[in-house]
Amino acid sequence: MSNKSITVGIVGASGYTGMELLRLLIGHPHISIRQVTSRAASGQPVATSFPHLQGALELNFTEPDPAVLAECDLVFFTTPNATAMHMVPALLEAQTRVIDLSADFRIRDAAVWSQWYGASHACPDLLSDAVYGLPEINREQIRGARLVANPGCYPTAVTLALLPLVEADIVDTSRLIADAKSGVSGAGRKANLGTQYCETADSLRAYGVAGHRHLPEISQTLAGRLGTDLSLTFIPHLVPMIRGIHATVYAELIAGDADLQGLFGDRYAGEPFVQVMAAGGHPDTRSVRGSNLCRMAVHRPGDGRQVVVLSVIDNLVKGAAGQAVQNMNLMYGWPETDGLAGQLSLVP
Amino acid sequence: MSNKSITVGIVGASGYTGMELLRLLIGHPHISIRQVTSRAASGQPVATSFPHLQGALELNFTEPDPAVLAECDLVFFTTPNATAMHMVPALLEAQTRVIDLSADFRIRDAAVWSQWYGASHACPDLLSDAVYGLPEINREQIRGARLVANPGCYPTAVTLALLPLVEADIVDTSRLIADAKSGVSGAGRKANLGTQYCETADSLRAYGVAGHRHLPEISQTLAGRLGTDLSLTFIPHLVPMIRGIHATVYAELIAGDADLQGLFGDRYAGEPFVQVMAAGGHPDTRSVRGSNLCRMAVHRPGDGRQVVVLSVIDNLVKGAAGQAVQNMNLMYGWPETDGLAGQLSLVP
Amino acid sequence: MSNKSITVGIVGASGYTGMELLRLLIGHPHISIRQVTSRAASGQPVATSFPHLQGALELNFTEPDPAVLAECDLVFFTTPNATAMHMVPALLEAQTRVIDLSADFRIRDAAVWSQWYGASHACPDLLSDAVYGLPEINREQIRGARLVANPGCYPTAVTLALLPLVEADIVDTSRLIADAKSGVSGAGRKANLGTQYCETADSLRAYGVAGHRHLPEISQTLAGRLGTDLSLTFIPHLVPMIRGIHATVYAELIAGDADLQGLFGDRYAGEPFVQVMAAGGHPDTRSVRGSNLCRMAVHRPGDGRQVVVLSVIDNLVKGAAGQAVQNMNLMYGWPETDGLAGQLSLVP
Amino acid sequence: MSNKSITVGIVGASGYTGMELLRLLIGHPHISIRQVTSRAASGQPVATSFPHLQGALELNFTEPDPAVLAECDLVFFTTPNATAMHMVPALLEAQTRVIDLSADFRIRDAAVWSQWYGASHACPDLLSDAVYGLPEINREQIRGARLVANPGCYPTAVTLALLPLVEADIVDTSRLIADAKSGVSGAGRKANLGTQYCETADSLRAYGVAGHRHLPEISQTLAGRLGTDLSLTFIPHLVPMIRGIHATVYAELIAGDADLQGLFGDRYAGEPFVQVMAAGGHPDTRSVRGSNLCRMAVHRPGDGRQVVVLSVIDNLVKGAAGQAVQNMNLMYGWPETDGLAGQLSLVP
Repeated sequence: MSNKSITVGIVGASGYTGMELLRLLIGHPHISIRQVTSRAASGQPVATSFPHLQGALELNFTEPDPAVLAECDLVFFTTPNATAMHMVPALLEAQTRVIDLSADFRIRDAAVWSQWYGASHACPDLLSDAVYGLPEINREQIRGARLVANPGCYPTAVTLALLPLVEADIVDTSRLIADAKSGVSGAGRKANLGTQYCETADSLRAYGVAGHRHLPEISQTLAGRLGTDLSLTFIPHLVPMIRGIHATVYAELIAGDADLQGLFGDRYAGEPFVQVMAAGGHPDTRSVRGSNLCRMAVHRPGDGRQVVVLSVIDNLVKGAAGQAVQNMNLMYGWPETDGLAGQLSLVP
Repeated sequence: MSNKSITVGIVGASGYTGMELLRLLIGHPHISIRQVTSRAASGQPVATSFPHLQGALELNFTEPDPAVLAECDLVFFTTPNATAMHMVPALLEAQTRVIDLSADFRIRDAAVWSQWYGASHACPDLLSDAVYGLPEINREQIRGARLVANPGCYPTAVTLALLPLVEADIVDTSRLIADAKSGVSGAGRKANLGTQYCETADSLRAYGVAGHRHLPEISQTLAGRLGTDLSLTFIPHLVPMIRGIHATVYAELIAGDADLQGLFGDRYAGEPFVQVMAAGGHPDTRSVRGSNLCRMAVHRPGDGRQVVVLSVIDNLVKGAAGQAVQNMNLMYGWPETDGLAGQLSLVP
Repeated sequence: MSNKSITVGIVGASGYTGMELLRLLIGHPHISIRQVTSRAASGQPVATSFPHLQGALELNFTEPDPAVLAECDLVFFTTPNATAMHMVPALLEAQTRVIDLSADFRIRDAAVWSQWYGASHACPDLLSDAVYGLPEINREQIRGARLVANPGCYPTAVTLALLPLVEADIVDTSRLIADAKSGVSGAGRKANLGTQYCETADSLRAYGVAGHRHLPEISQTLAGRLGTDLSLTFIPHLVPMIRGIHATVYAELIAGDADLQGLFGDRYAGEPFVQVMAAGGHPDTRSVRGSNLCRMAVHRPGDGRQVVVLSVIDNLVKGAAGQAVQNMNLMYGWPETDGLAGQLSLVP
Repeated sequence: MSNKSITVGIVGASGYTGMELLRLLIGHPHISIRQVTSRAASGQPVATSFPHLQGALELNFTEPDPAVLAECDLVFFTTPNATAMHMVPALLEAQTRVIDLSADFRIRDAAVWSQWYGASHACPDLLSDAVYGLPEINREQIRGARLVANPGCYPTAVTLALLPLVEADIVDTSRLIADAKSGVSGAGRKANLGTQYCETADSLRAYGVAGHRHLPEISQTLAGRLGTDLSLTFIPHLVPMIRGIHATVYAELIAGDADLQGLFGDRYAGEPFVQVMAAGGHPDTRSVRGSNLCRMAVHRPGDGRQVVVLSVIDNLVKGAAGQAVQNMNLMYGWPETDGLAGQLSLVP
């Protein structure tokens, strides 16, 4: 295990994912932050935008400076989609490793990516190099990766819930359903009308029912584990809470006598950030608030044909910044929990 | 159409359903409130417990007085379950009509009721007399009913969402799924730890996955429309909002070429309190806050095999007190919207 | 009392104040809505922007059309500040009466107005014609007014709390303090970063401590009642709730033996929309949610030198649209509670 | 500086303060938790009650065992008031040091304590031994204390806001005002009706205006610094948020030319957990969520006679458990920030 310290850059750090990444990196034992960029806040102290970091980080935001970033050992992108792909090739060429928290490298098929993200991909050749950064399936590849595509928030919660079932091939993968509920921070830190306090508080709505970008990402991962195509209906909902995703996943058993509790327990045994609750459990999203945990419970209500998996994460941690730190730890051979284990969930 | 005025009593009015019923009855043009009972608050002015009604209602809470109640034309029960069944027989005998907002008369089979509600039924003979008070299916029977079993909140939202599909027999009724999300007021007005502000705010969880009392109620209604048994997986969730239910219903089409928008539009044409949104809509719960509306949208995402219906109600209005007033209007031959049409949704 | 019906126009109706005014006007017995304007939504059905009004209002938004507005009996402005003043003179000339819910006509001194609102006033000559629409002090002038300046939300809550004390001249008016807390809807319906859900939920902050536009408005009204200048410290706070203002007002008694409960009771006796609670009360903002009430309690804690008045309103109703309807009722000789009495507070 | 490790007990750990203390102690480098007591949950794993601690703490709750507690180096009490005082004398006799997070030892005068807490004090002789655990005034005494009375949440926020003004003797201490706003967790973890989600969400109210137990505590501390009596009006409010206190403090300057920014900056220079914001600042409570910080801003609005100090803390951290850890660090000669510096505020 290495103890070397590295320098990191964070591009586009003025959003919620960037803020959360800063919080986690400030406390990380092996890194020093070299550059934090934000076009909008360039020149200002980070602590001016984020007063809760006053005293904890003395840097100013800068414009992204390719030369400085190329001197970093590792660069995180917390940029809007279709941004990182324009800067990543040069960084990789400079031997800088990259963890991209946006969606630019998550979809292996450039045509599919274009269809969902509405742009041509700037470096389709790199798509096959990118490692999908879900440690629970790609731990070994992440260790050696030079480019990690950090998973989306919904995909993390939904994929982890379905993984044991799909890998064991005991459910009807032609009729999977994921009903997912997200806190508002998943929409990002932008001046939108639709996510104003008075538009979202004390109310709940579904959105993107016709099609959400996270659907092809989830399908790609699960199909990869299954070895063949599958069909998933994915319906996201916006919930009046700040953080948290709750995925309620429905799958029909094709093997009637499965020991689901055992299956899930075995699948995630040894995983530092996945907790399978005792039978009958109902995880609440606050139980992972601020932590990198995914907590889940598996149920078989009624006549037992439907498996219902309840899975919760903090969308900004295991669903974004925390998973990125977990990936970094793997990439540099540090204990996988460094900088994360000390962040217990904030309850209440 | 009758214009006579009636006297009503409300038994157990100190909970949220009772409060909401008072709000609606105070503004109703054809009734006068004779007795409002609450064992806990007996002797106190209603406006002491509910200061927002100060100036609008000058009554005191009393103990339930069978003689006075029997003099009322109509008595509403907003009591905990297994309470109304002890008082209803005498009232019916006295020719007082009853709308029970609790669950005592919703299940036609006394054995099933006992299994879910943990008590013997006190008057099983009356179960077959009770009319299930969902006007969208039982309008005519409600008009003549002497005992109306007012539907539960989840059953109202879920049943209305599934009804057109089940009645048209175009979905696979062996694998229906209802993923439902409720505001906290659905848990009632009690000093519980689990529904304290700090236990529920900024968090979401499923509950009752192993089995919820509203499941047999929904199944009974839908099976009645279908003419045969069906299988429904029903998963309720607790959401950090005060009012509102959002049901997300999944059903698999067996007829590929259905005109769903037309089906739903036709089914609810003329219904004063059901609005089918234009194609592509996403109803939010706040759009029905304080009103008796059920708003819904029907979707067919992906390959079109799954129908997804989004349905929202205010659990305290269309899911309880408002539906009770709608039923009362039917029972007395008044316009179905009396006392309800003026209650527009409070947005924001 | 008149029973004639009038036609009204609403200019700038796409904000929260406009939405609330529509809700109240739709149910009003004596008016018909002729034109509802919104530059941004022009041409669209009102029910497209505001689906909760579907079925209740069949109009489309239009651009403001001076000719049509001039044909209305009454025009409401729910526009941003510094907008109404450009349209009001022509309307008054056309004998159309105006209720302006923005701040354009609230300050009598054009220089003071310019200082706080950062623009030259377009029609300073009209400032002295405008009647400040607080019925509790200007009821008679409102009846005859052609131009009513509808009060701000904070000023309504704070002024009503201080009025009995200032009019009775029993407090030290050189050291008045108003600590006010507002729900987020007071900030308007705009795509701001600072009022995003994730920026305001589960948090509280003061703002505008150096000076808030509502301070000169409050001071002007109170000084007018006192007959001389006074000094008020006014500190507003942003609270994670949708609606509601709670003003906590501190004033030092100069007359030690005052019967405060009697003073407040007498001052507001007969006021249809002010309720003075019994001694010891603590009004909560939800008790006026959606209603036109101001509820208040007067306290004298500790050694009795400080009077503390607690005053709550719904900022969108008594603090804006409801008060405008109350003013309209006065202007047209209708019962002051028309269209308002039926709107009971929505609790919970 | 000592590096020895100590064993600690926590009595009454099933409330919010106990939960928060566990969160902080689990991550503390120098302590091991020996006993965690809860009469209600005795025998159960802590992680059953608090699933967010699963994997982080392997203890079971026990009944409080005086013998085991007496073997601990340090015992924390997070019990309801009037509980610790019955157990503390024996612990002190056994040379176990105590930090009491309840109110039992905060008031030096037993008669005053009895008046506010409604009981006779069980060990009035110890009141003079207890050190009031506000490090910003009693750092040296805390180091040597065997019994620390950990301050209340409101007193921490209000006292720190007023301290520089009172110590410098530049304000009129006969007319101090503290208008304080608290999140609901301040009311504790109990099955109360008044703090149910539906009773507190989307609403704000004052409470305890006639007199609140934290008033004598604040007055005692400030009078101690001033050397004479003073008069404070203290009005608490309940805010729909989980954590956080915002104190808005009003004081009248008697010295017109004070450099307030300098005064506050100097007073808290070197304090690890007090941050004085730059002039014009408005702290929000979320900026200290989960951290031990007190952040404050000092203003002089209007004519400059009134000083307005805005002060925020997390009521469960600097207002309770975090301050207790800070006190422990002082008592054992560890760096004052041990176990606390790594807990950055959780924003958003």
